Amino acid sequence: MPQRRLRLGMVGGGQGAFIGAVHRIAARLDDRFEVVAGALSSDPQRAQASAAEAGIARSYADWREMARAEAARDDGIDAVAIVTPNHLHAPVATAFLEAGIHVVCDKPLAISLAEGEALAKLAREKGKLFALTHTYSGYPLVRHARELVERGELGEIRVVQVEYAQDWLAEPVETGGANKQAGWRTDPALAGPAGCLGDIGTHAYQLAAFVTGMTPRALSAELHTFVPGRRIDDHVQAMLRYANGARGMLWASQVASGAENGLRLRVYGTKAGLAFDQEQPNELWFTPLGGLSERLTRGRVKSVLAAHATRVPSGHPEGYLEAFAQLYKDAALQIEALDEGRALPAESLLLTTVDDGVAGLRFIDAVLASSAADGQWREIEGA
Amino acid sequence: MPQRRLRLGMVGGGQGAFIGAVHRIAARLDDRFEVVAGALSSDPQRAQASAAEAGIARSYADWREMARAEAARDDGIDAVAIVTPNHLHAPVATAFLEAGIHVVCDKPLAISLAEGEALAKLAREKGKLFALTHTYSGYPLVRHARELVERGELGEIRVVQVEYAQDWLAEPVETGGANKQAGWRTDPALAGPAGCLGDIGTHAYQLAAFVTGMTPRALSAELHTFVPGRRIDDHVQAMLRYANGARGMLWASQVASGAENGLRLRVYGTKAGLAFDQEQPNELWFTPLGGLSERLTRGRVKSVLAAHATRVPSGHPEGYLEAFAQLYKDAALQIEALDEGRALPAESLLLTTVDDGVAGLRFIDAVLASSAADGQWREIEGA
Amino acid sequence: MPQRRLRLGMVGGGQGAFIGAVHRIAARLDDRFEVVAGALSSDPQRAQASAAEAGIARSYADWREMARAEAARDDGIDAVAIVTPNHLHAPVATAFLEAGIHVVCDKPLAISLAEGEALAKLAREKGKLFALTHTYSGYPLVRHARELVERGELGEIRVVQVEYAQDWLAEPVETGGANKQAGWRTDPALAGPAGCLGDIGTHAYQLAAFVTGMTPRALSAELHTFVPGRRIDDHVQAMLRYANGARGMLWASQVASGAENGLRLRVYGTKAGLAFDQEQPNELWFTPLGGLSERLTRGRVKSVLAAHATRVPSGHPEGYLEAFAQLYKDAALQIEALDEGRALPAESLLLTTVDDGVAGLRFIDAVLASSAADGQWREIEGA
Amino acid sequence: MPQRRLRLGMVGGGQGAFIGAVHRIAARLDDRFEVVAGALSSDPQRAQASAAEAGIARSYADWREMARAEAARDDGIDAVAIVTPNHLHAPVATAFLEAGIHVVCDKPLAISLAEGEALAKLAREKGKLFALTHTYSGYPLVRHARELVERGELGEIRVVQVEYAQDWLAEPVETGGANKQAGWRTDPALAGPAGCLGDIGTHAYQLAAFVTGMTPRALSAELHTFVPGRRIDDHVQAMLRYANGARGMLWASQVASGAENGLRLRVYGTKAGLAFDQEQPNELWFTPLGGLSERLTRGRVKSVLAAHATRVPSGHPEGYLEAFAQLYKDAALQIEALDEGRALPAESLLLTTVDDGVAGLRFIDAVLASSAADGQWREIEGA
Repeated sequence: MPQRRLRLGMVGGGQGAFIGAVHRIAARLDDRFEVVAGALSSDPQRAQASAAEAGIARSYADWREMARAEAARDDGIDAVAIVTPNHLHAPVATAFLEAGIHVVCDKPLAISLAEGEALAKLAREKGKLFALTHTYSGYPLVRHARELVERGELGEIRVVQVEYAQDWLAEPVETGGANKQAGWRTDPALAGPAGCLGDIGTHAYQLAAFVTGMTPRALSAELHTFVPGRRIDDHVQAMLRYANGARGMLWASQVASGAENGLRLRVYGTKAGLAFDQEQPNELWFTPLGGLSERLTRGRVKSVLAAHATRVPSGHPEGYLEAFAQLYKDAALQIEALDEGRALPAESLLLTTVDDGVAGLRFIDAVLASSAADGQWREIEGA
Repeated sequence: MPQRRLRLGMVGGGQGAFIGAVHRIAARLDDRFEVVAGALSSDPQRAQASAAEAGIARSYADWREMARAEAARDDGIDAVAIVTPNHLHAPVATAFLEAGIHVVCDKPLAISLAEGEALAKLAREKGKLFALTHTYSGYPLVRHARELVERGELGEIRVVQVEYAQDWLAEPVETGGANKQAGWRTDPALAGPAGCLGDIGTHAYQLAAFVTGMTPRALSAELHTFVPGRRIDDHVQAMLRYANGARGMLWASQVASGAENGLRLRVYGTKAGLAFDQEQPNELWFTPLGGLSERLTRGRVKSVLAAHATRVPSGHPEGYLEAFAQLYKDAALQIEALDEGRALPAESLLLTTVDDGVAGLRFIDAVLASSAADGQWREIEGA
Repeated sequence: MPQRRLRLGMVGGGQGAFIGAVHRIAARLDDRFEVVAGALSSDPQRAQASAAEAGIARSYADWREMARAEAARDDGIDAVAIVTPNHLHAPVATAFLEAGIHVVCDKPLAISLAEGEALAKLAREKGKLFALTHTYSGYPLVRHARELVERGELGEIRVVQVEYAQDWLAEPVETGGANKQAGWRTDPALAGPAGCLGDIGTHAYQLAAFVTGMTPRALSAELHTFVPGRRIDDHVQAMLRYANGARGMLWASQVASGAENGLRLRVYGTKAGLAFDQEQPNELWFTPLGGLSERLTRGRVKSVLAAHATRVPSGHPEGYLEAFAQLYKDAALQIEALDEGRALPAESLLLTTVDDGVAGLRFIDAVLASSAADGQWREIEGA
Repeated sequence: MPQRRLRLGMVGGGQGAFIGAVHRIAARLDDRFEVVAGALSSDPQRAQASAAEAGIARSYADWREMARAEAARDDGIDAVAIVTPNHLHAPVATAFLEAGIHVVCDKPLAISLAEGEALAKLAREKGKLFALTHTYSGYPLVRHARELVERGELGEIRVVQVEYAQDWLAEPVETGGANKQAGWRTDPALAGPAGCLGDIGTHAYQLAAFVTGMTPRALSAELHTFVPGRRIDDHVQAMLRYANGARGMLWASQVASGAENGLRLRVYGTKAGLAFDQEQPNELWFTPLGGLSERLTRGRVKSVLAAHATRVPSGHPEGYLEAFAQLYKDAALQIEALDEGRALPAESLLLTTVDDGVAGLRFIDAVLASSAADGQWREIEGA
């Protein structure tokens, strides 16, 4: 059956942004979306130029206006991708949900837990998709790792080690204005109260939760800012306790000299352990207790979940854009089901949701609180 | 400046084919092409169903008809992607070139050197693009490797070691009809006289030539068929001699149990060596004589060529589809230039050409001849 | 100049022990020691049989007697290797120091800080060598890593990540008596109050301290026992704070399913980062901020320290026994110097000392205290 | 049962030599040998000084004299280690065999096939051990690889890929006299007619034969000398044919810039493939047809052969010296059995023999002949 291309709008992602172009490639890759409208910048002229350059038909100077206008059109957008700095996630998402438009939104969900919970409530009320782009859960082998845990191949989980190391903020690159990315991500007014914590700490947290199916019950954490003059944390370390007795550690740093995009997860259960490194996403390591490591590869692992999330045969590497595209592919399946009043397709259910976003905000809150209390253990609400 | 999407047609690539879908994703990824017409199967009903499923507007039952009809339309296709079995490459490409339509064609170029040379001549006469999809030369780090050689960082090249190992034909999977890929690739009537040699040996040969900037002057080769009943080679080994005195070895096998898609190149010069493995395409190893290895990564290597061929920051892996997309991106740049009578843009010049295809056919001929002569050294014409 | 073989005695290390045989190989490897006397077991018959099997000339039923007798002989031992369970380290070492015999002792130094401090004092008073076998600091590339830090190649240290993961105690293998190693290592009466913490946590701590030249000023830690019925910790996690503002994490586990002997260190400074994995001890990774990784190899790194600790050319791997032998080689150099009243040779100064052992005991104490106080940050005495 | 240390003599291996010291460590490591006599240099003064430095009791100025004198002593040597340049292997071995002394000899066995065959005959007649130190077959995982092949885990062998790449002779380091190793190894009068071929090509050949249990029936080869002025080959490439239809390639180079000691073997059968890299000797890769790779580690693989050849637990790396020691350990077992008229112990039977050396000389002869005949396929005598 031929599938209709869904119409996608975009807020944010104008010239100089990184993630806007990534969203556009990801949305296009599996041919389920066409970007037809955008408010790509708060500067109207830049918005117009950015849209033209990206081949986007309808450019708006204002996202409120865009929500209204698109909702009113017969051929208006089906969904909006929100790729703004963090502080706008909630207001923009609210406007589009109110206008009856599905939402695909960058993480972190919002800049406060209250905002996030309100969004989750609104999305439920409106019956609209709210997908959060935790890209790394789109990797086939991350999904397979989750399946291994679910099937009990690891036994009872005992230890979780997750980390996300980068080095691009090891120096005060946010000063001077040349590095737009660094600028907003280290500005609490735009990024919210969590710097490294919100930017990549939440990815690490979500990856561990996604694979293990567990979130920690409590944590002891310490935020730190290494770069003089920086207004926000650039390093976070935490110890974790899970309800089943498991223990864990989480480390995220943007000053780890030499690290590119080092998101790594290791999980150890009573029967086996596994390890994943997003810089080598076509392999997953599985090792039984006392045994030998098996290198599970994307194309050879027997997995319905992994197969749904892969496009090319074994030995032909897929990467970050394909993982991102997977989120859009799953979103398309869910949008169609929601629009037609059908149950969400089983194969789409690993798409990260607004609730994952709320969980991330609870994690942020707990880290902020524990760090402020010199590492006192804090319960994580709802976990 | 906003860029027009080029209109692409496709011949071959219907349901059950692998490479057709890959071409469509690759063409779409950088938003420079839209697939609008196709003759996806020689079976008209299957062609129609395949086109509908792929969201292709105009479906033709016959590629000759398609060439004629598209040439006649104001909004006819700018280029055609030929993804048929090998024996049709030449006739299809000829038809579209004659119709004044640019060509993007799978390798090997043709099933005989004569066919290939005629195509090269025709493409030159018509002034049309003839791009050959040697995907692996689309990898940023393969292009960077070439640049390292060109800049003299390796010194004078002494040794070339290239190999391409797979295992998917280790058993007689071509029997029974279930495996369509195996079926035509082991049938000399469809694949031509070279099996493994044409299918992956040419990739290995082209990769070595692309990076070193040299093709061997002579070779001594042996083809072999391991699987009983197979009508074509599934294994090739060759020794190489280059004009500058360099020596080399080439190995390609489709019966190498355990191998997925193991295309690997190592080049050693008087000053340094390098190594690339397409299953880990985000890294390239460079080691000076007597020195320590440096792991060059896609996002961190200083390289205009690599930068032109990459989309996401360091540490965010790209893969096979992005390499393939790069060929289409370069093709778009060249098509625009050709259509506008401009010189081909410098950044597009690494696109593999019909002449690379002819070189591949000369290699095939030399291997067939040497193998038939019990490994006698054979000169490679034109090299 | 021909070098005299030193005479070595051994306490502990009888049949069924692992580390006794390792010490004997290590002592012999560089031909600086000959094992001539031993009290290999507290069971006199087993002691005798073990000595005979190991080709040790003089066997004692009791180590007190051995200290006395050897001190009285003209050809008595120069040094004793103590390879007993932890609780005997201090009494045995005391007896031999009192007898004027140099000591090489397994880690942890003792089962209490008081014991350890007394030993350190005694060793100083007696002017005898007290070498502690923190094997991993015998690796050439660990020594080179230390040199890189000392030379300022990493800049100011910001982040330390160290871990030691094993899986051999993931099940209650200490029950039943078959596994002698597991038996004493999980028995607080023999191992002391620290299980995994003392057994491998101290190795991790020492490795980080050895390479960075810094010990943490404070830590927040949690001990845990996963295996039901076990009388001692089998898992430790800790966060670290250093005097210069650096942060760190330490993880040690003996229940990490699939892990063999995973001691790994990563250090990040303002200028570069490095990584070492003792399971791949012939390589060390060095990556500048924003730059590319260099794979430093044992045989090719320019390093006086590494050269002193290596025996075979580049590409010929050395391993654990060679690292261990290095400690004995350094010990021989120091024993000769001490006996002759010379200054300790510069190239021997990386040998781990009784003070390193005391530092390890302080670390153990701080972890025990912090863990007992629900992770409250504890200062580390003397650091 | 306590084991007597065997008395070992050494010919060659004086100051400035590399391999003599390696032999002495290897012989000592497992405590089965003590070096008590030597003719370490043809220069009597250097011989004396070298022996003194190495702590060797009896120094001879001449190896003929040494053979006579040691044979005459009650406490004369049990075995001699021959570590001279190649041209002396045969005369020295002959002298000691004639004197009734067991022989451990460096490879290649001799500088001509005739010499080698005579030695093999003599060793058989004398009933003495003649062990050839093909070190790499002492690695536990090389022995395990052989066992996997023998047990049929790979199925019928189809493809063998073996290579040995170094870079230490990439420049004319043999000139000037400073590099003693390079000097004799590139001098046909001392090294014999085969340079790289004899020095490392034979190692590659032997490793492939040892693991697969097959030697090629025929080969087509090309020797090459890259470095101007060099009197001997520094590069060899060959194609192989086996009696069972298998095919293979062998490459050895001493000019491969950046390579340290890259001896690698891959074997592919109808059921699975395996890969070994001597620079990572604690792991062996096994991959079934169409399946996932398993990383077999030295300490965890279930293998009687590997266990016999290992000293420390899993995760504690062993290296080159331990592999070398294994040959001496096996030699000790065989010497004792021969001296006592017992059958050779089963666990010692993987020790490389004089017949392996003869096979290596046949390989050398075939390569020399094929290369001289422009790569014509040559049968390998006796294979």
